[in-house]
Amino acid sequence: MKPPKAFTDLRELSTEIHRLNSVLSLLHWDQETYMPPGALSPRSEQIALLSELVHERKTGRKFKTCLEKLTSLSTGKLKAKHLSKPQQIMVREWGKDFRRLNKLPTEFVRNFSQVTAEATQIWSTAKKQNNFSIFAPFLDKIIHLIRQKAEFFGFEEHPYDALVETYEPCMTVRKLEALFDGLKKDLCPLLKKIREEGRRVDDRFLHHKVDAAKQHEIGALLLAELPMESAYTRMDLSSHPFSLALHPHDSRITTRILPHRFISNVFSILHEAGHSMYEMGLPLDTWGTPLSEAVSLSVHESQSRWWETLIGRSLPFWKNFYPRLQKTLPARLKAVPLDRFFRSINKVEPSLIRVEADEVTYCLHVIVRFELEKDLVTGKLNVHDLPMAWNAKMKETLGIEPKSDAEGCLQDIHWSLGDFGYFPTYALGNMLAAHLFTAFAKTHPNWEKRVQSGDFGFVREWLKKNVHQWGRTYNLEEIAKRVTGKPFSEHAYTSYLKKKYGEIYQL
Amino acid sequence: MKPPKAFTDLRELSTEIHRLNSVLSLLHWDQETYMPPGALSPRSEQIALLSELVHERKTGRKFKTCLEKLTSLSTGKLKAKHLSKPQQIMVREWGKDFRRLNKLPTEFVRNFSQVTAEATQIWSTAKKQNNFSIFAPFLDKIIHLIRQKAEFFGFEEHPYDALVETYEPCMTVRKLEALFDGLKKDLCPLLKKIREEGRRVDDRFLHHKVDAAKQHEIGALLLAELPMESAYTRMDLSSHPFSLALHPHDSRITTRILPHRFISNVFSILHEAGHSMYEMGLPLDTWGTPLSEAVSLSVHESQSRWWETLIGRSLPFWKNFYPRLQKTLPARLKAVPLDRFFRSINKVEPSLIRVEADEVTYCLHVIVRFELEKDLVTGKLNVHDLPMAWNAKMKETLGIEPKSDAEGCLQDIHWSLGDFGYFPTYALGNMLAAHLFTAFAKTHPNWEKRVQSGDFGFVREWLKKNVHQWGRTYNLEEIAKRVTGKPFSEHAYTSYLKKKYGEIYQL
Repeated sequence: MKPPKAFTDLRELSTEIHRLNSVLSLLHWDQETYMPPGALSPRSEQIALLSELVHERKTGRKFKTCLEKLTSLSTGKLKAKHLSKPQQIMVREWGKDFRRLNKLPTEFVRNFSQVTAEATQIWSTAKKQNNFSIFAPFLDKIIHLIRQKAEFFGFEEHPYDALVETYEPCMTVRKLEALFDGLKKDLCPLLKKIREEGRRVDDRFLHHKVDAAKQHEIGALLLAELPMESAYTRMDLSSHPFSLALHPHDSRITTRILPHRFISNVFSILHEAGHSMYEMGLPLDTWGTPLSEAVSLSVHESQSRWWETLIGRSLPFWKNFYPRLQKTLPARLKAVPLDRFFRSINKVEPSLIRVEADEVTYCLHVIVRFELEKDLVTGKLNVHDLPMAWNAKMKETLGIEPKSDAEGCLQDIHWSLGDFGYFPTYALGNMLAAHLFTAFAKTHPNWEKRVQSGDFGFVREWLKKNVHQWGRTYNLEEIAKRVTGKPFSEHAYTSYLKKKYGEIYQL
Repeated sequence: MKPPKAFTDLRELSTEIHRLNSVLSLLHWDQETYMPPGALSPRSEQIALLSELVHERKTGRKFKTCLEKLTSLSTGKLKAKHLSKPQQIMVREWGKDFRRLNKLPTEFVRNFSQVTAEATQIWSTAKKQNNFSIFAPFLDKIIHLIRQKAEFFGFEEHPYDALVETYEPCMTVRKLEALFDGLKKDLCPLLKKIREEGRRVDDRFLHHKVDAAKQHEIGALLLAELPMESAYTRMDLSSHPFSLALHPHDSRITTRILPHRFISNVFSILHEAGHSMYEMGLPLDTWGTPLSEAVSLSVHESQSRWWETLIGRSLPFWKNFYPRLQKTLPARLKAVPLDRFFRSINKVEPSLIRVEADEVTYCLHVIVRFELEKDLVTGKLNVHDLPMAWNAKMKETLGIEPKSDAEGCLQDIHWSLGDFGYFPTYALGNMLAAHLFTAFAKTHPNWEKRVQSGDFGFVREWLKKNVHQWGRTYNLEEIAKRVTGKPFSEHAYTSYLKKKYGEIYQL
C-alpha cells in the first residue's frame, strides 16, 4: 500500500531539513577546526541564514498542512491509514517535534537569544575577575526567562520537568530524584571509603610531558583499533573535543592535545568515537526522518561513556592496548606495570569540575548542579545566595569546596547560555550504559577475552543491533527495558562502580 | 536620497544568494580536502540542494519583480531614479545575470547535465583505454547541445561568441582571432628560434625527489612571504591545486606535493595566492552584490598569472627567495647557482598539455583548442576527424605531436563537461596581466629592487587599487584601457616574452 501523499511530502521536507542540518554541521565543524580566525563574522551570518532556512521549514505551512493530514496536532492521535509501523513512528515523532517547536513564541525566542548572548560575554568577564556580583543580575534575568519557558512548554508537576524534557523527553524531576537519591546513597559512602581506606596510587607518570607528535601517534594507533570504517570518519584537533555527524557516512571526531595530560587525548578519542559510532549506526534507508535520528542527549551520552569508561577504562582493554602504548612512550611507561597504569587511570579523587572527573564522582557533580538548578527555577534559592549554596553542596556531596566562585558556580558557560535541565543527561548516560551493559555481558560472557584480544567489532555490532539501528523508535526507558528486560534504574551503575572500585582500592 | 525599496530588497536577496554560495564553496572545499571518501553521495545531495536554493532565488519571482522596477528586462535600460552610480552598476549587472540565466530552458539545462554526466564517465574510460571511438558519439551529442545553447543565448556573428561570453563577457571570435593571430605571429618564430639557437639549460635538479616534509616547509616559507593576512586565509593539500573564497575574509588555497616536481608546489602556491588575493581585495561594504564579485574568469586568471609568472618567474623574486630555498634544500641546490636555477624554471620546451607549460608555449596550447572548438561548433570539423585535426594543429603550432589520443584530444575532462569557450580565458589572463604590468612598472619603476628585497605589499596594493576594489564595475577591456591608457591587445605580452626569453636564451 502506498503511503498518502501528505506522508511522502512530509518525508521529503524532513529530508531537506536534515540535509540543511548536515550543512550547518559542516559550518560548525569547519569553524572549530580549520576556518581562518578572521572569518568569524561571515561564518556567523552563514550559520544564521541556514538556521533560518531550517526553522522556516520546521515551522512553516507546508510542514503543518502535511502533518495535520496525518495526525491530530493537539492530541498526537494518528489520522492517516495505510502507514506501516515505522511510518507511524515517523509521524509520531514529527508531531512531537512540531508541537514542541511551536510552543515558544518567536518574540520570546528572540529575547532569549539576546539575553543569553549578552550574559555569555558577562559571564566570561565575571569568571576572569572571579566576580559573581556582575554576573548575578544576568543570571537573574535568565532564570526569569527559564520560568517563562517552562510555562510555555507546560508541565504537570514541576516547572523543571518542562526543561529536562528538551534534552531527555522521558524524564521528570520525580524520576530524577529517585535515581539520584539512589546514586548518592551508594556513591557517597563508596567515595568516603575510598578516600579513607583505599590504597594509594601514584599516578604522577600521567602528568609528565608528552609532545604533540607522540600524542598524534597514540591517537592514530587508537583510532585504527576502533571498529569504525575509515571511509566514513576522520579525526582532527580542536580546542574542545567534539563529535559531529553530517550523515552516517560522514561522522567526524576531534580531540585535543594537552602536553601534560596525554591520557586525556586517549579518553577524548574513545568518548567521541562512541558518539560517532552511534551516528554511523543510524539506518541509511530512513535517513532524513526521525527513524534515523538519535533518541536524546542521554542515549547519545550512554554511547560515548560506554566506549570511554565501560570499555576504555576496563582492564581487558588495556591488556590489549597497553603494550603498544608502552612501546610508543618507552621513556614514560617502561617502568610502569599494567596494574599500576590501570589503577592510575581509574584513580578516584574529588575535583571541582565534572569535566574529566573519575567514574565515582562524575555523577555527584551532576547531582550538585541538578539540585541547585531545581531550586533556582522554583525560587527556593535566590541567585544572590548561589555561591554559598554551591559551596555547601560541593562540601556535602563531594567533600571538597572551591576556593573561589570562578572555580565554583562560575566554572562553566552553561547557565549563561540558558541551558537549564541539560546536566542530568550526563548522569543518565552513565546509568543507561551500565544498565545496557548487563545485557551485553549476558550475550557475550566472553567479552573480556575478546576485548583483550583487540576484537571490538562485536561490541559495536551489539550496540548497533540494540540501540543505533532503532533511531527514535524507542525512548530511553523503552530501550532500557527492551534490551535488559528490567526497568531503567541506577542499580546496574552503582553495582558496577562498587565492584570495580572495591577491587581497585581493595576495600 | 534613500534608494527605492525594490533596490534594497534586491540587494538583500543578492546577499542571501552570495551567502548560500559561500556555503556551497565550503562544501566543495571540504570535499577536495578533508571529507571522508565514503561521504561522496551525501555530499552530492547537499550540493544539489544548496544549488537549487541558489537557482530558485536567482530566477524566482522576487528577483524578477524587484529587478523589473529598477530596469527594463529586455533592453537593460535603467528605470529607477535616485540611485547612486555604484547602485546603478549593481542593477546593470543583476540585469545582465538575470537575462542570461533565463535564456536557457529548464528542460535543456537538465538534459545538458545528464548528457555531460554520462559523457564524463565515458571520457574517463576512453582516456584510460586510449580509445577515442567510444567517446566520439558522446562528444557528438555534446556539440549538438552546445549549438543549441548558443542559439538560446543568441549571437550576432558566430555561434562560438555566445559560448565565450559565458566566461568572458566582452570577447567575441573576431576579437579573439585578432589577438591570437598576433600571438602566433610572434610566439611561433620565438619558439622556433629558442629551439634552434637558444643555449641549452640543464634542469635535472628540478626533478630530483624532495620529500613531503621539506615541501611543506618550502610552502609555508613561501606563503609567509606573500602579502596575505594570515587571519583570512589558509593553505591545504588537494589532488589538484585550487583557490576558493567564501568571503574576502575567508579565502583559501590548496597546493599539491609531487615528489619529483617540488617546483610545481611553489608555482601552484603563487598561482592560487594570486586568485586568492583578488577575492580578498574585493570590497567589504558592497559584499553580496556584483560590486564585490570578480569580473570574469579571464580577469581572475590575470591575477593568478601575475603572481605566478610576472612576479614568481622573475629574477628579482628569486634573488630574494632563492637563498632561503637553497638553505631548505642544501643537498639539492647548494651546487646550483641562481642563474642556472632561474634559467631552469623558465626553460622553454613544447609539451603535450597546457598544464605547467612554460610561458612561451602556454598560449599556443590555448590557441590549438580555440581553433578546434570553433570548427567543431560550426561543423567545419567533424568529431570523427578530431584526433587527426588535433595532432595536425599541435604539429603546426607547437612543433610536436602526441603519440596517442589519450595524450592528445582525450587529454582533459573539459569537453566531456561541455565546457566550450572556456579555454580562451587562460590566454586572455596572461595577456591582460602583461598589459596591466606596463602601467604597474611605470608607477613603480623600482619594482624590481623592492621585490628583490622581499617587499610585496605594494604589488598587492597596486592590484587592489586598479583591479580588485572595483568588483564588476568595469569589464576586461575597460580595465585594460583605464589602467594603461591603451586599448587591450597582445602587444605587451609578446614584448614581455620576447625580451625575457631573448635574454635567457641569448638570442
